[in-house]
Amino acid sequence: MGKPAIRYSDLFTKTSMAAPQEENSANARLLVRAGYVSRVMAGVYAYLPLGKRVLDKIEAIIHDEMQAIGGHELLLPGLHPQENWKATGRWDKFDVLFKTHGEDGPEYALGPTHEEVIVPVVKSFVQSYRDLPFYTYQIQTKFRNELRPKSGLLRGREFRMKDLYSFHATQDDLDAYYEKALQAYINVFERCGIGSVTVPTIASGGTFSEWSHEFQTETAAGEDTVYYSAAKQMAVNDEVKDKVLAQEDWANETLETRKTIEVGNIFKLGTKFAEDFGVKFQDSDGNSIHPVIGCYGIGTTRLLGAIAEVCHDENGLIWPESIAPFDVHVAQVGKGDELAAFTETVLAQLKALDLDVLLDDGPGSFGSKMKDADLIGIPVRIVIGSRAVKANAVEVKRRTDKDAEMIALDALADYFRAG
Amino acid sequence: MGKPAIRYSDLFTKTSMAAPQEENSANARLLVRAGYVSRVMAGVYAYLPLGKRVLDKIEAIIHDEMQAIGGHELLLPGLHPQENWKATGRWDKFDVLFKTHGEDGPEYALGPTHEEVIVPVVKSFVQSYRDLPFYTYQIQTKFRNELRPKSGLLRGREFRMKDLYSFHATQDDLDAYYEKALQAYINVFERCGIGSVTVPTIASGGTFSEWSHEFQTETAAGEDTVYYSAAKQMAVNDEVKDKVLAQEDWANETLETRKTIEVGNIFKLGTKFAEDFGVKFQDSDGNSIHPVIGCYGIGTTRLLGAIAEVCHDENGLIWPESIAPFDVHVAQVGKGDELAAFTETVLAQLKALDLDVLLDDGPGSFGSKMKDADLIGIPVRIVIGSRAVKANAVEVKRRTDKDAEMIALDALADYFRAG
Repeated sequence: MGKPAIRYSDLFTKTSMAAPQEENSANARLLVRAGYVSRVMAGVYAYLPLGKRVLDKIEAIIHDEMQAIGGHELLLPGLHPQENWKATGRWDKFDVLFKTHGEDGPEYALGPTHEEVIVPVVKSFVQSYRDLPFYTYQIQTKFRNELRPKSGLLRGREFRMKDLYSFHATQDDLDAYYEKALQAYINVFERCGIGSVTVPTIASGGTFSEWSHEFQTETAAGEDTVYYSAAKQMAVNDEVKDKVLAQEDWANETLETRKTIEVGNIFKLGTKFAEDFGVKFQDSDGNSIHPVIGCYGIGTTRLLGAIAEVCHDENGLIWPESIAPFDVHVAQVGKGDELAAFTETVLAQLKALDLDVLLDDGPGSFGSKMKDADLIGIPVRIVIGSRAVKANAVEVKRRTDKDAEMIALDALADYFRAG
Repeated sequence: MGKPAIRYSDLFTKTSMAAPQEENSANARLLVRAGYVSRVMAGVYAYLPLGKRVLDKIEAIIHDEMQAIGGHELLLPGLHPQENWKATGRWDKFDVLFKTHGEDGPEYALGPTHEEVIVPVVKSFVQSYRDLPFYTYQIQTKFRNELRPKSGLLRGREFRMKDLYSFHATQDDLDAYYEKALQAYINVFERCGIGSVTVPTIASGGTFSEWSHEFQTETAAGEDTVYYSAAKQMAVNDEVKDKVLAQEDWANETLETRKTIEVGNIFKLGTKFAEDFGVKFQDSDGNSIHPVIGCYGIGTTRLLGAIAEVCHDENGLIWPESIAPFDVHVAQVGKGDELAAFTETVLAQLKALDLDVLLDDGPGSFGSKMKDADLIGIPVRIVIGSRAVKANAVEVKRRTDKDAEMIALDALADYFRAG
């Protein structure tokens, strides 16, 4: 048995048919118009009830996949001690770091990433090789002082992010876990409905290691360019293209150029942060050595924006079923006791099918309700009007279909069970 | 069917028998020692896997009660535009406001509360009396630049808080909703296991209205003093005591003085914030007027600290069942295939009972494992040693009991079903 339907009017948001002037990206224009988000200022959004529901579904998938690879959830703070960022040399070098003053003098960083907190936090627990490996993650709010926030939810000053950190006794152990994490990331994007357009992409490992991997989602509005090998099911990014193609096993690949958005990345950090904070353990031979660390990020609000960027048409959003805010959008057109009673009968059937329902029984016209339903983009729309009551049937349309069909009330369960 | 048991060693945290020197409160001393939280700096904590599980359970109860009074969840940002705080006159007056500079000049506030964001966010959606009332809430991270953070999790520079905002066409409608919210708060504290020591307390309404209500939890370490009337099941705080007792219906009350911690408060804000942001709607007579607003807060990390403050003894934490990180703590003492197989049998039974289990099968001694179990404070402890295998029974002890009892394996389900 599912939950009772939620009345659209209780969510307090409304759609807007006018495109917001300050938004230049499809994701923000649609998400603002449909009432999923509200722009608080450049690069900072509020996630309204519809948007929060989508974000929750995305994050539930990520929780599931992170726990499947042994991740245990924690929650690290947004306020970081200055000394931690000085210890890693990033206080002055990390170019989007927000800083704030405490009343009593000390400056804090607002966390744009959490190596500076997680590594000192685990320090007292890592004493022996028997304490390793372990994997811990959070989904939490990050701050980055972007000079020019842009592309709606894709590059903000404040965003939510899943960051997992893995701690290992040996490089081999990190290498093996990294492959598991890469597969978990493929699963996340597949389950969020953008698997077919998202590819792991070889990128630079920066100062930490030779390579890292990005996950790049193809879209016309993409700000990155990657080169995709269908044979390898792997892409390379611009930055490392020449270096990768110089390798023997990539030399003869046929590459397809794609415009993409980065939706995740995974990194081997080596021992840098363990060295900075003096984290050491005794290996099985009694030597005192540093653990090697991996980090694995997905911006969850960015992913929401990327999915909106990929999954829409000229009429509005088209959510993948797995992350849609509701399963069914029921629009009751008209009023009256008989109609309301019929709607209740339909809602009871949908509840028995464990479907989450958004009910629009407000005073709007047929036309405006259909426009709203297209804009909001819930996978299935059911229209209930006086015709429905007479026919003892409802008008059902998938968001991806062109035409609606009449489904008799006693065939509705089969319609949804058939999927 | 429940989830598989979680191995204590996978959580990566360890208990510590030494009291942390920098902590002067029972809640922080115990939560740090037991591995629930880690102090990042004064007033800022990391919530480790055990602590995150308790926080999740507390927040799930709050979600449930807020949704039961019509609340729909959203998520507002931590970064606030300076102009919003100037609009309410609180930019210079709110004395614990953290401020931070953007790269391109503007200053931001770090949200210590969210009237300055929610009111402008809803503005475009409130046009007619038909759009009211509505209720929306979030559970999110707040920042307050406390001069002297103290009392562990009770007064921090960063903390999580549930804040619900209600919007009404009339004062009467707000008044009626306020009573529902007050009852929902009583439910929250009851369900979190501190109902018997938590009382609604009349407090000042500040500049907004005559009265507000705090929820005050009795504890020896309380920093507040309230005066409780058993007949009214209501207390008054220090600030308004004289004014309340001057009222006829309080004049003859017998009052009991209690040391308490504030764990929640509810406020009628009137029209102040709607005026500041020019939020107006047309009433049924066509007049353009301001909605009246209520706000309702619970610090969820503070509540966790308060529960720890109330629910412990000299050996450690004693979690109420509803919010314990796990239902059962299984300590396997010793090693060997036979013992491990017996443990698996016990775990399978607990899983079938849908109980969440923490499994400590590490190398520790019986004594250290019992000390750990007391310190961590999970409601039921099961010890499995060689004696258990021979007897085909396990040693079971509730955290609140003095002595353990042997329960035959085939009676274990009944033990838990009896509750």
